[in-house]
Amino acid sequence: MKTSCKSVVMLMISVGITALLLTPKAMAQQKDRMVRIARITVDPTQLAKYNAALKEQMTAAVHSEPGVLTYYAVADKTNPAQITILEVYADSDAYKLHIQTPHFKKYKEAVKGMVKSLELEDVNVIGIAKKSDM
Amino acid sequence: MKTSCKSVVMLMISVGITALLLTPKAMAQQKDRMVRIARITVDPTQLAKYNAALKEQMTAAVHSEPGVLTYYAVADKTNPAQITILEVYADSDAYKLHIQTPHFKKYKEAVKGMVKSLELEDVNVIGIAKKSDM
Repeated sequence: MKTSCKSVVMLMISVGITALLLTPKAMAQQKDRMVRIARITVDPTQLAKYNAALKEQMTAAVHSEPGVLTYYAVADKTNPAQITILEVYADSDAYKLHIQTPHFKKYKEAVKGMVKSLELEDVNVIGIAKKSDM
Repeated sequence: MKTSCKSVVMLMISVGITALLLTPKAMAQQKDRMVRIARITVDPTQLAKYNAALKEQMTAAVHSEPGVLTYYAVADKTNPAQITILEVYADSDAYKLHIQTPHFKKYKEAVKGMVKSLELEDVNVIGIAKKSDM
């Protein structure tokens, strides 16, 4: 085996060991997850503006906050002003930090005249199954 | 550069070109996605059995069906018998295949005495934001 190949193999082994060492921490983190469903009714005349503000907020949060993990935002096919968002945070502290960020405050300010109703449901995960690339 | 390293670089370039060639197809596929929210009220006395059957179905579908992409199944914290499932299929044909599979039929048969109500909402995706490892 050439020296360069040996280095690559040693690196792969190191990465594998590191991954194994991190697993219990990752499992503990998963237990603390905060998952929430938000159901939002938007003023239909302001829907395009609302959706743009929502997407800007979601993207900024996931990119800049380590504890904001996932947002799935969907709209009813027959009534696109009826929106459901599945939100996943690392834990409740991550959520508390999130609602203090400039991008979240900007979103809340931008949409306050657009949202007709907001219902929040805190949930526990029963199971998640997904393709590895999803 | 050693020959072995050259091979690795050539392989990486090939993978990159292949990924670029596949992008338009991947984008078209994303447009056809079928996304659905199922809201299910389960008989509380049979909740553990229901959740086990649901998880078995979800796992089998995602592992064995190319067109079944994602399931997020969650339960209301204050009422765990109130379940919400976010379901993502490659397209409506993938969904039609899914409901003909043995694992789906087995699930439907197993839970028919457990489900008190079932509401299906077809939705369009507004946006998805998530960490790359989620």
